Order: sequence, then C-alpha cells, then structure tokens
Amino acid sequence: MYGTERIYKKVEIIGVSSRSIEAAIETALVKARGSLDKLSWFEVQDIRGHIGDDGKVAEYQVVLKVAFQLKEG
Amino acid sequence: MYGTERIYKKVEIIGVSSRSIEAAIETALVKARGSLDKLSWFEVQDIRGHIGDDGKVAEYQVVLKVAFQLKEG
Amino acid sequence: MYGTERIYKKVEIIGVSSRSIEAAIETALVKARGSLDKLSWFEVQDIRGHIGDDGKVAEYQVVLKVAFQLKEG
Amino acid sequence: MYGTERIYKKVEIIGVSSRSIEAAIETALVKARGSLDKLSWFEVQDIRGHIGDDGKVAEYQVVLKVAFQLKEG
Amino acid sequence: MYGTERIYKKVEIIGVSSRSIEAAIETALVKARGSLDKLSWFEVQDIRGHIGDDGKVAEYQVVLKVAFQLKEG
Amino acid sequence: MYGTERIYKKVEIIGVSSRSIEAAIETALVKARGSLDKLSWFEVQDIRGHIGDDGKVAEYQVVLKVAFQLKEG
Amino acid sequence: MYGTERIYKKVEIIGVSSRSIEAAIETALVKARGSLDKLSWFEVQDIRGHIGDDGKVAEYQVVLKVAFQLKEG
Amino acid sequence: MYGTERIYKKVEIIGVSSRSIEAAIETALVKARGSLDKLSWFEVQDIRGHIGDDGKVAEYQVVLKVAFQLKEG
Amino acid sequence: MYGTERIYKKVEIIGVSSRSIEAAIETALVKARGSLDKLSWFEVQDIRGHIGDDGKVAEYQVVLKVAFQLKEG
Amino acid sequence: MYGTERIYKKVEIIGVSSRSIEAAIETALVKARGSLDKLSWFEVQDIRGHIGDDGKVAEYQVVLKVAFQLKEG
Amino acid sequence: MYGTERIYKKVEIIGVSSRSIEAAIETALVKARGSLDKLSWFEVQDIRGHIGDDGKVAEYQVVLKVAFQLKEG
Amino acid sequence: MYGTERIYKKVEIIGVSSRSIEAAIETALVKARGSLDKLSWFEVQDIRGHIGDDGKVAEYQVVLKVAFQLKEG
Repeated sequence: MYGTERIYKKVEIIGVSSRSIEAAIETALVKARGSLDKLSWFEVQDIRGHIGDDGKVAEYQVVLKVAFQLKEG
Repeated sequence: MYGTERIYKKVEIIGVSSRSIEAAIETALVKARGSLDKLSWFEVQDIRGHIGDDGKVAEYQVVLKVAFQLKEG
Repeated sequence: MYGTERIYKKVEIIGVSSRSIEAAIETALVKARGSLDKLSWFEVQDIRGHIGDDGKVAEYQVVLKVAFQLKEG
Repeated sequence: MYGTERIYKKVEIIGVSSRSIEAAIETALVKARGSLDKLSWFEVQDIRGHIGDDGKVAEYQVVLKVAFQLKEG
Repeated sequence: MYGTERIYKKVEIIGVSSRSIEAAIETALVKARGSLDKLSWFEVQDIRGHIGDDGKVAEYQVVLKVAFQLKEG
Repeated sequence: MYGTERIYKKVEIIGVSSRSIEAAIETALVKARGSLDKLSWFEVQDIRGHIGDDGKVAEYQVVLKVAFQLKEG
Repeated sequence: MYGTERIYKKVEIIGVSSRSIEAAIETALVKARGSLDKLSWFEVQDIRGHIGDDGKVAEYQVVLKVAFQLKEG
Repeated sequence: MYGTERIYKKVEIIGVSSRSIEAAIETALVKARGSLDKLSWFEVQDIRGHIGDDGKVAEYQVVLKVAFQLKEG
Repeated sequence: MYGTERIYKKVEIIGVSSRSIEAAIETALVKARGSLDKLSWFEVQDIRGHIGDDGKVAEYQVVLKVAFQLKEG
Repeated sequence: MYGTERIYKKVEIIGVSSRSIEAAIETALVKARGSLDKLSWFEVQDIRGHIGDDGKVAEYQVVLKVAFQLKEG
Repeated sequence: MYGTERIYKKVEIIGVSSRSIEAAIETALVKARGSLDKLSWFEVQDIRGHIGDDGKVAEYQVVLKVAFQLKEG
Repeated sequence: MYGTERIYKKVEIIGVSSRSIEAAIETALVKARGSLDKLSWFEVQDIRGHIGDDGKVAEYQVVLKVAFQLKEG
C-alpha cells in the first residue's frame, strides 16, 4: 500500500487499569474499538497513576495517541 | 471510582475572549459543552493573542486540552 | 472578527503522498474536507517517510494539526 | 549580593483556587510560607483545572516551581 | 492578504506588572509600541514572578514573543 | 473537595527493581511512604535500566514525580 | 576563520509564499536582506499555513531563525 | 573507576515483542549483544505498538538508547 | 511480520542539496545505501541551510533519523 | 548493588559563583552537603548568569538536579 | 525596583572562542556591549563547537539569550 | 564546498574527565578519533557528573553528538 495517497487520524485517549501499564493500554484499545474505525497503531504519551490509601498503586493511567486510516472525504 | 477500568478522551480546542485568559478558557468550555460529553478537566497548552490597531490586546486565544470520560465501546 | 468570543478545534491527521512534502499536506487537506467543517489553518508536527526497496523515498508522511472554527454548542 | 557564592533550592508545588490563575498562585505562596524559608521567585510550569457538573471551571490548578535561598550547609 | 509574499519578525520581550498576568502582557505591548512597527500578535513563552518580603507576589514577569510585519527589504 | 483552596507538593524519586517497570514504581512508593505524607498520584518521568554482564536487564530504574497534599502553612 | 573570537546574532522571521515551503524560505531571505547584515545560515523552526475557502493550502508560513555575523562592538 | 578518563557510545535501537514492554526491551538487548560491545545501561525513548485486526496490541515497539564503553581510540 | 521478535537500529545522518528539501533527503538516502543495511523509514529531525553571498539559499541541510532492521546478533 | 530494591531522591538546586561554571557546580555541592544525605550524582539543567555594570559576567548561576539514596521508609 | 511596570528584551547571540566555554560567553558579552543597551542577564541555549584537523576542539560556540531593560516606548 | 551534494553522520558519545567540562569534551574527541572518520563538529547534549565520598565532583560526564562527513556509498 506504500506510495498511495491516503490519510490517517490520531486521537488522544487515556486507558485506566489497576493491574499494569500493558493492561491500561489494552483497556484503552478495547473500549475505543466501539467508537473508532479499525485502529492501526498507538504511541504512549504519558504514564501516570493514582496512589491508594495503602500507599500502593491504585491504578495506572496511560495517555495514548491512537491512529487509524480515514476513508475518502 | 479509582481502580475500575475506564477510558477518557482528550480533544484540543482554542477559546477566544477579549477580556482575560480565564474568560477565554470559560468561552472554550461553554461552547464545547454542546458537542462533547460531560467534561472532566482541562490543561492549558498555549496562551496567545491578537494585537489591535491601538497596540493593545484585542483578544486572548488559549489553546486547551479538554478531557472527558468515554462510555463503553 | 477579532475580539468576538468563539472557539476552534484542532485535530491531528497524517497525509501521505509519494511526490513531495507539499503534496502530502494537500492530500491530508483534500481528504479531510469531507468529514470536517471548513478548515482554517494547519501546523506541521512531523515529517517522516517510508523507504522503498530501491533505497529511495517511497512516500512522505506528514503529521499535521488542522484547525477549524466550531459552531456554537 | 551578585558575585558572592550562594545556593538556592527550587521545589515544585501546586496551588488551587476557584477564582483565577493569579489566586491559585497566591494560594500556593501563602500556604508554602509556613514550611519553607523566605521565598524568592516562582516559575509557572503548568496551568490546569477541574470542570464542574455545570461545565464551568470548578478550580484552577497551577503547578509552580518556587525558589528560596539556602543557608550554609 | 493571504497568499501574497510577505515577511514577519518575532522579538522576545518581558513585561512586568504587580497586578496580574494580563497587566504584564499589556505593559509589554504598550512600551514596545514605541520602538517596533505595528504589532500583529503575541505568544506567551513563560510566566514567572518575584515574591516580596511578605511572601506574596511582588510582580508578574511574562515572557512574550511579539510579531509584526516587515516592510520590503 | 474541588473548589477549596489547597496546595500539593511534588517530589522526584527513582524506584529500582530487577523485576519489572511496575515493580520499580511500587518500590519507590513503598519506601517513600515512611518519609512523606499520604501520597496522592505519580507521573513517570523516565524509564532507564542497568544491563548485567549476561547482557540482560539487571534492574529497571523508573524516575517518578510523586504528589501529596500539604497541610496549611 | 575557525578559532578567532567573533559573535553572531540570530533573529526570528516568518516567510510567506503560496507556492511551496522552499519559496517561503526564499521570500524570508530576500526581504530580510535589506534590513540585516550579510546572512550566514538559517534554521527552520515551524512550518504552518493558511487554508483557503477551496480547502487547499492558500499559503505556507515558515518560521526561521536567521544568523549573521556582528561587527565588533 | 570513577574519575578516570574514558568514553561511552550510545546507539538507538528498537526492540519488538508481542508480550510486554519489558519483553521488547529484553529482545532489543539480546539481539544487540552480538554486534555491540558489552552493554552498560539503557534509556527508554518511546513506547509504541501495532494494533492487530482484533483491536488488541499485536506488538510493543520500544525505542531505546543503549550505552557501552568504547576501547581507547 | 507484526508480532515476531525483531530489532531495528536508527542512525542520524544529514543530507545536503542545493535544490530542495526533498532532494536533500534523497541525497542522504542514496549515499547511506552503500554503508547501511536495507533502509526501512526516515524521520526528519531538523531543516537548516546555508545562505550564499547573493542572499539566497545556497544549500538545504536536512537532519534525518534513518531506521533499518538488524539481523540476529 | 545493582539489582537490589532501593530508592533515590532528586532535588533541584542552583549554585552561584563568579569564577566559572565548574565553580558554581562545586558551590552547590559543598553547601548542599550539610542538609542532604550523601550525594550520588548531578545533572545540569540550565546555565545562566548575571552581567555586571562593566558588561562582563558577574556570576554564573547553574541549575542542577542532585540525586542521593534514601534510607528505607 | 520590583513591582514597577517595565519591559526587557531578549536577543539571541553566539559567542565564539578557542579557549573555553566561559571565554565564548565573555566574547559574546564584550562584543554585544557596543550595539545593545546595558545588559542584565544571559541564559545559555546551546554549547557546540568546531573540531580541527588535529581532532581537538578548534573553537567553542555558545548560543546565548541576553536580556536588557528597554527604555519607555 | 557549499552547494555540493554530500552527507554527514552524527554519533552520540559521552566523554568523562575529573578536571572540567572542557576536558571531558576533549577526552571524548581524542578517544573517538581512532574509530571514526575525521570529525567536523560537536553539539553538547547533557552535562552530568558523579559526586565522590567527599561531596565534591568526582568526574564530569558530557554527552555529545559528534558529526563527520561520510564518503560516497
């Protein structure tokens, strides 16, 4: 497909999971699938998290850019 | 709600007002409310402005990222 | 129009063309016209490309932010 | 005092206020005064905020670096 | 005027005021008017300030880029 | 609590663990609990590591900013 | 000339052209020649543009730093 | 060894794995061992990934800088 | 090929041409082909240039990162 | 010690000296020794300075991050 | 003087010297004194240099921002 | 030579010396001379250092990019 004129869009989403950074990324992708076209790739922008009353990580919050190809306008 | 799997989306908008930086932020939020889900937080990306013929600030232009929670996909 | 309260939105798109950087920008704008309101300006974020088997540029991929004015919410 | 050997420390604090960006900065400085030596200058790092149920700014959160001179070690 | 060949220059100035961030921006623009051509727009680069002996903001220092159109060379 | 005047402090710490990035973050939080007030959130700044004589990751070093609310000054 | 004490100055200018990125750079250099000393090199800072009513690029705006050697003070 | 004159080199590599971010880092280090001298440390530059047809992470792509000591020239 | 463990290397090169930005990129790729494995993609890092005695662009200098897949170590 | 779980803290300090950049760094370290645990390494963040009435450097101001190992919490 | 409305300008200059980084900074300040008002402070932006045929540093090139107070417009 | 098609490569090296920042740069260049072609220029990326048991700088570590011209491929 390289060389053909086409266009992608990137949107910024934040996935949240209490388990791991990878789980937060998967959460973002699974939930984004419903409202976006077929996703192509992602780029991690930031990794953050909330700390619980026990002083441990309560959840990971991963800020992603997700890209997908746009159909012709 | 911390610890549950969920997803947020961030969009980039620019609010404009002739009065102040805070007014430009409020303009962006008020007008965005109609086309976006319930907004959660904002992050200022850039503060710019146009200068009038009298050499004073004609308007403040504040570039924001605005975040809101997405419903399940 | 300067001085009136209004709001713009910026979206991030990637235009692809085998011809030149300018052609990749035009591709992005032409195809974006169908799904977005009247576009106002663009900002180049990144210039990348794919290299073909012959070691030459197979295509230019230009990451843009494109801005357009939002109607009242 | 320029030219004499001395040392400053910078700490990162976040001031919060529902009124304005300037009020959030003042909040940070007033409350920091109790636990830090005499403050010398500040640098704004980030301006963020929470959005209330009414879609307006509920509070401004301003991330600052605050600097003060250290006494001899 | 869009589409005609022309050139702008940007200079970096710092406005200072004890009142507010907006007042520091206006100070910079008013005083710059004397030595620069008709100003077109500004971009805020940094917001800093000095802290007085009372622990409050003594002045806001706002670093701006200011742009204006150059006449033909 | 949104809307009340308050202040947070951010400190920069580095957690180290031979197991995973998440384990390095947890190490940092567990050990920081003794000398800091109740922690609120963290932001990952950098992910680095040492490579052992066998060419594998000997340890992950994760640079974090950790935030906690300050009591009144 | 390497090794001799000397000094350069950099100024920030924006060249505009409807034809191409290279034409916008040349526009900036041609018009700057009149008011600046002999130019030595340039660095592209940003590539932006205005979009016309037809949805195509109306003009390229290229932000440059241009450097030239200063005569002795 | 601190204090002796010596020199390190950093190279930029990308490790890919379908399992986790840590696995992508280990992949990069294992495969780099054959062509580079004894590795000393790594720094994560970017975390990206490809998304499969099922909308899940098909692979993690981790961009690393890897450093190793150079022998005398 | 997505999903298989593999490794890429990125190197930083500068292509120079008097004709255009695209020509400078092609120069870099053509000359790099002799000493590097099959190239996969490039990323533009910086666009600079030298200005001739006539005040026009004497040459474009484009700083690229070029990536290629490494064979097993 | 590589591979054991441990934690470091980084603080930001500014050393000032009229003699040289290296002297400003040493000033910061000597004076910091009294109030901080045993220091491990430093990273230069910014190099600035004040200019005297004679137009020469009155003092160098070097902004450093200084790191030291924290004892168990 | 803190608290009074005033304005500074920053210009970007490059000082060159074969001796040291500090000498390159002093060169820039000495030569700038002739064409600029009384200088107030400087900020180092970049440190670069040329390498001679003998493989040693032929000269240091230090990019500075230099600030000075502007008289009323 | 300006205007002719040619290509440079940049590599990232770290020079270490206990004496000064300049000495660390010279160390990097002297030792790099053996394994690289004739060097052309360098750019300082980071200045760091190790702190000895006496609380003083044990060594300066200067991260450089070093550039040299590549022969035809």
